Amino acid sequence: MLGRVLCTVLFVGALPSPAGASQGHISVILLGATGDLAKKYLWQGLFQLYMDQVSSGHSFTFHGAALAALEPGQRLMFDVLKKLSCPPDEAPNRCAVLKDQFLKLSQYHQLKTAENYSALNREIETLLRQEGLEEAGRIFYFSVPPFAYTEIAGHINGSCRPRAGAWLRVVLEKPFGHDLPSAQQLAAQLAGFFREEEMYRVDHYLGKQAVAHILPFRDQNRQFLDPIWNWHHVERVEVVLKETVDAKGRTSFYEQYGVIRDVLQNHLTEALMFLIMELPANVSSAQEVVQHKLQAFQALWGLQRSSAVLGQYQAYDSQVQEELPEARGYVSTTPTFAGVLIHSHSPRWEGVPFLLTSGKALDERVGYARVLFRNRAYCPQSGTLRDAGHSQCKPKQIIFYFGHGALNTPAVLVSRNLFQPVMPKDSWKEAGARSDLHIFGQPLSDFYMYSPVKERDAYSVLISHIYHGRKDFFITTENLLASWAFWTPLLDSTSRQPPRLYPGGVENQQLLDFEMVAEGVAFTLAEPAELLNPSGQMPSDFRAIQSKFRQSPLVSAWAEELIARLASDMEEAALRSVARSGQFHLALSGGSSPVGLFQRLARHHHGFPWQHSHVWLVDERCVPLTDGESNFQGLHRHLLRHVRVPYLNIHPMPVHLNRRLCVEEDGGAQLYAKDIVALVANASFDLVLLGVGTDGHTASLFPRSEQGLEGAPTVVLTESPVKPHQRMSLSLPLINRARQVFVLVLGKGKHDITTLLSRVGREPSKWPISGVSPSSGQLVWYVDYEALLG
Amino acid sequence: MLGRVLCTVLFVGALPSPAGASQGHISVILLGATGDLAKKYLWQGLFQLYMDQVSSGHSFTFHGAALAALEPGQRLMFDVLKKLSCPPDEAPNRCAVLKDQFLKLSQYHQLKTAENYSALNREIETLLRQEGLEEAGRIFYFSVPPFAYTEIAGHINGSCRPRAGAWLRVVLEKPFGHDLPSAQQLAAQLAGFFREEEMYRVDHYLGKQAVAHILPFRDQNRQFLDPIWNWHHVERVEVVLKETVDAKGRTSFYEQYGVIRDVLQNHLTEALMFLIMELPANVSSAQEVVQHKLQAFQALWGLQRSSAVLGQYQAYDSQVQEELPEARGYVSTTPTFAGVLIHSHSPRWEGVPFLLTSGKALDERVGYARVLFRNRAYCPQSGTLRDAGHSQCKPKQIIFYFGHGALNTPAVLVSRNLFQPVMPKDSWKEAGARSDLHIFGQPLSDFYMYSPVKERDAYSVLISHIYHGRKDFFITTENLLASWAFWTPLLDSTSRQPPRLYPGGVENQQLLDFEMVAEGVAFTLAEPAELLNPSGQMPSDFRAIQSKFRQSPLVSAWAEELIARLASDMEEAALRSVARSGQFHLALSGGSSPVGLFQRLARHHHGFPWQHSHVWLVDERCVPLTDGESNFQGLHRHLLRHVRVPYLNIHPMPVHLNRRLCVEEDGGAQLYAKDIVALVANASFDLVLLGVGTDGHTASLFPRSEQGLEGAPTVVLTESPVKPHQRMSLSLPLINRARQVFVLVLGKGKHDITTLLSRVGREPSKWPISGVSPSSGQLVWYVDYEALLG
Repeated sequence: MLGRVLCTVLFVGALPSPAGASQGHISVILLGATGDLAKKYLWQGLFQLYMDQVSSGHSFTFHGAALAALEPGQRLMFDVLKKLSCPPDEAPNRCAVLKDQFLKLSQYHQLKTAENYSALNREIETLLRQEGLEEAGRIFYFSVPPFAYTEIAGHINGSCRPRAGAWLRVVLEKPFGHDLPSAQQLAAQLAGFFREEEMYRVDHYLGKQAVAHILPFRDQNRQFLDPIWNWHHVERVEVVLKETVDAKGRTSFYEQYGVIRDVLQNHLTEALMFLIMELPANVSSAQEVVQHKLQAFQALWGLQRSSAVLGQYQAYDSQVQEELPEARGYVSTTPTFAGVLIHSHSPRWEGVPFLLTSGKALDERVGYARVLFRNRAYCPQSGTLRDAGHSQCKPKQIIFYFGHGALNTPAVLVSRNLFQPVMPKDSWKEAGARSDLHIFGQPLSDFYMYSPVKERDAYSVLISHIYHGRKDFFITTENLLASWAFWTPLLDSTSRQPPRLYPGGVENQQLLDFEMVAEGVAFTLAEPAELLNPSGQMPSDFRAIQSKFRQSPLVSAWAEELIARLASDMEEAALRSVARSGQFHLALSGGSSPVGLFQRLARHHHGFPWQHSHVWLVDERCVPLTDGESNFQGLHRHLLRHVRVPYLNIHPMPVHLNRRLCVEEDGGAQLYAKDIVALVANASFDLVLLGVGTDGHTASLFPRSEQGLEGAPTVVLTESPVKPHQRMSLSLPLINRARQVFVLVLGKGKHDITTLLSRVGREPSKWPISGVSPSSGQLVWYVDYEALLG
Repeated sequence: MLGRVLCTVLFVGALPSPAGASQGHISVILLGATGDLAKKYLWQGLFQLYMDQVSSGHSFTFHGAALAALEPGQRLMFDVLKKLSCPPDEAPNRCAVLKDQFLKLSQYHQLKTAENYSALNREIETLLRQEGLEEAGRIFYFSVPPFAYTEIAGHINGSCRPRAGAWLRVVLEKPFGHDLPSAQQLAAQLAGFFREEEMYRVDHYLGKQAVAHILPFRDQNRQFLDPIWNWHHVERVEVVLKETVDAKGRTSFYEQYGVIRDVLQNHLTEALMFLIMELPANVSSAQEVVQHKLQAFQALWGLQRSSAVLGQYQAYDSQVQEELPEARGYVSTTPTFAGVLIHSHSPRWEGVPFLLTSGKALDERVGYARVLFRNRAYCPQSGTLRDAGHSQCKPKQIIFYFGHGALNTPAVLVSRNLFQPVMPKDSWKEAGARSDLHIFGQPLSDFYMYSPVKERDAYSVLISHIYHGRKDFFITTENLLASWAFWTPLLDSTSRQPPRLYPGGVENQQLLDFEMVAEGVAFTLAEPAELLNPSGQMPSDFRAIQSKFRQSPLVSAWAEELIARLASDMEEAALRSVARSGQFHLALSGGSSPVGLFQRLARHHHGFPWQHSHVWLVDERCVPLTDGESNFQGLHRHLLRHVRVPYLNIHPMPVHLNRRLCVEEDGGAQLYAKDIVALVANASFDLVLLGVGTDGHTASLFPRSEQGLEGAPTVVLTESPVKPHQRMSLSLPLINRARQVFVLVLGKGKHDITTLLSRVGREPSKWPISGVSPSSGQLVWYVDYEALLG
């Protein structure tokens, strides 16, 4: 039957001559052909593809597939196909003929078992043989739940690959996992069946015309943007999707995901990346784009719990209770609103806040990515006259308007006091003046505004890109994992955090306003009591507890709070020291524990007197300072390169003198000791930060070795039981001369040693840390709950 | 006669008992007693002082002095005194009595000759003896042109000093010089007569209530301001004085000074300093305040020609022609409008623009200092609702309103979405709502607004401060010179620059709007042709000329343009190199010539790929790296501490190994050579920047020495004819391996060697610079017009 249909098409005289039939045949298989997405967008997109490409020289067949048996499946599918609409810019006659053909070229298949897939493959091959067609390729569009991906992928790979020479394109719909490990797992499974270039992961925002135009806009307007696309000129970037609908009827899906996974991790992040990535020389090169995007991901500061504010509309919980029987007696903390602050440490974007916001049950449906520029002008003429003309004192912004909202069309807007942008005339037209409208506080007449010549639905756009093999409009595995790697720490750290409840709609008023504070973001208004969840089941905040450990003060809290407290205490010590002596001599340990601390100091402690601080190392591995294993490298990467310590105040340990590592006769340890004596009054550091190993070592002073435990306050070479064995370290007597010593202990892995240390006395040769006891200074333990309580 | 008057005062029964007469007697001598300032403000201020302090226990006499003879002088002076007014808050009866007494205590003196001063002194001494009064002190108020200062100062010092134990306070009025050298000269002259603590330099802005309250406000609101008074929160600071009047009738003064000397160097700078200085622990300690102010001056980036926009109202030139006969046929370039962009490199203010603006013939009379905070909030609710309440999305600002303008009163305004400030209730009161008024685009109801309980004229305030010895309200010599040191380079570099002409009044519209651009500030609108001065006498812009020098490309221009060009060429070389190899190896010379270049790179080249650059030294003096003489120190101070070169990419020369300087056997030169070989591909630097000495030396390769001129490409120890003699230097063969070598030659002092070099061939042992000739790289000469043309 399929053969007959195809013939009909190929020889319909009214159509352009199929001279291009030599281009080969394309089979499109839509899995989940009767599902919601297929009904709403995908079939229409495939029909559009057919209309656009019928004269391209390719021939097509369309195979809808689902689990349902042939008879009901077929009926369901053709109910959908009959309703396909003709776009307004298509001649009705031509469209009617093409629609008729499209229906004839479309067929339903039950795809459930391995045998079903083999049968499909046989049908396609038979058709190709009968019609004497070369195969160009096959598109498998997965519009099915992700749990079904691997099985289907196995069948396709096992029995539905096209012959050699033809391509396979597998189109996947989100969600692609729900955090980094699950995304990695799914990616690894798929990689067992498909090559990277065969996979087209859809983020339908990349098909939205305003989003898709971000990179071309940046490329075509380089002359205007090059000078201003940086932290000097950009005040902030906002990427926003506001919805008026709520999750009613979809809570079984939503409850597993929440707004961050549903919208921020994918759509808003992708739009942001287009704005902030370094612009590739060729913006249509998928490879260049993804490389630059990955670099942009690398340059983002990690998210913390305080990076986000979360909300939940009030009715959500009862909707969950209604729709999910298993949720009885359980209070959902799934966020339906999120505002997230993101920063990059790339030199271009240093300090510029990127604000991603999305929510359900808000006052308005609208989406946009907005770059707001700083006011760099001063206008001496007084207020009333200032607003005349295109004053530079007016706000300056570039907005990629995704759609809906006041404009109700995708659009690109550029403030008239910025520049008149270059726009491709065939696809974007200047929009007429609608002076009644205001947008972001300005009349529309303040903008150059462009809207698409032909408004196209995102799925139609993307299906066309799949056909053209434009991989730059899809999410590669690397891209996907980079995004999950970025978002997962926030998802983990906020998983039990109670969201702020909001009434929904315009009633929200200022309740969801949030602002940047030292720590990240916070809601501006205090939580109104009447909205507080009365159940009292939400986890309460933990507070740092204070007591004693080994006769010294103990500060304990969950890791994040503990680090915040330690960083504040360090800043306070530094300020006190600078006030007293004009300097602050700080000796820092390496390893992984202090990384969070370093990052916190770099990001949140802008009052830290770095200009007057000297940074010393407590210990070092005998590797070149450029080695990834070097303590100094870690310190530099996480702290020093972000703050302004004068060059000569930075004191790496000289483990690499004369281009060799820690050779006794090079006298590196003695040299470091001399430097300390020369610069640090009385060789007494203002603050020494230590850690503890599971074996009780501290600095690079190890158990069962006497090196550095007794004797003069000096610097010593030591041997570590683990690689790299050679180390340089401050000696215990030198550490004990310090005015303050802070010991940071983090994580479950340190619970045993912590317990042990709480019981034993001073036995440095067994547990060097037990010998830390400043002779006239103060010792403070910072131990997190996991280390303390297991 | 004086004795009789005094007795009258001391024994008037209606007055409070003069029990405090034991406090001693104060003689106030007003020099220039019949001048404009005295008429308008000073006598009224002295009368106010008398009213305030009559019961303080001090007794007073007031001596008006001028050059006029006794008879006419007396008449002029008493005409002024009779018109003294009673302040509204003074009981009319008491005031009338006090005014009568004040007149009786006041006397005119002709002070012209040395004898006149001796006579005055004798009179005072006689009075003291006759009345049996202890002398408390003498105040000499100089309300005379500054050319008269030294002579008067000599007379006072010579014959009018009070007896030991009593104080002398000399009050000086601006102008205090017209640039740094003249101010230094005047200061040195005055220092020959008075001790620093005896001098009270008036800047009457420090007596304006809103200005005087800046430091107390910052002090009393530390809790609110501490977290936000920094670059993270402050978007910009504006200090503005707009006048409607022009200079008509005063051009003989104005033509010598212009708006920068008249208003910016003193009034606006002082207000700015109060805003940006680190807050002293004790804000009423004159010493602490001045120390912190000086530090704030130190942290300012130097001004350049591009730091300012200058304007002149159209009628000014014809006013000058009318009023100054000597100005015929001469076109004044004196600015009557200036907008200046100032930056600080203190960690607190990094990147925050400070905009100082003042002008005559503007649309409005108003003065203010305004701190505008960044919007740190995001408000999801749509526009119309956003304006409700005290949304954090509204602008946030703190304004010290000097007076006039829409408010017509001094005021302190704080946005309600910031905080409710602590204000001293005895001197500042909350102002009533005047909701009709808008200020800086916001209704007044958006602010907490405070105005003085008692509005006081600046001179009255200052005269009271003189009486109380509050030196913190006056300009110390150090302070004055710091300000002139800051402003003089701008005055020098703009002295011949044609100002933009503006029509005056509201007609100016947007003509004076200016904006921050990469280079500094620039007017937003292009110069309208019809306003251009038709005389054509203004100096035209100079352009860089290109030709050859010693067979290599030559770039020449005035120094500032030349450095701008060199910096751009360096950035381009860096970007090219990073694109090619991922790195950029740059070797820099020390000395004074490249300082301007370093500063320019630090300030204007935000696209420079510092993260991927390695910085090497061309040569170094054998001094510790912490020494002020060290090339590395200069490089660090002017460049490295402002940009983000990774620590391990910075390569100071190892001149100080084993804590000793350039000892052959320590092998520092070999070590540096090894580092170069290890890190720089083929030991070929991407760019070497050289200078030339007047003797033809370059790097630290000196004439009449073979060291480093031939042989292997290496690093050598050399001997300089000048101290410090020992040097380390790249050798000529190593320099000549570079891909590019740029030689920078600046200043008249280099004219002779430049001329010589243009004629001689390759003779490195006579002129080492003549041996620079990259074997496969490019050599470019950057020689300024002064070096080239003499």
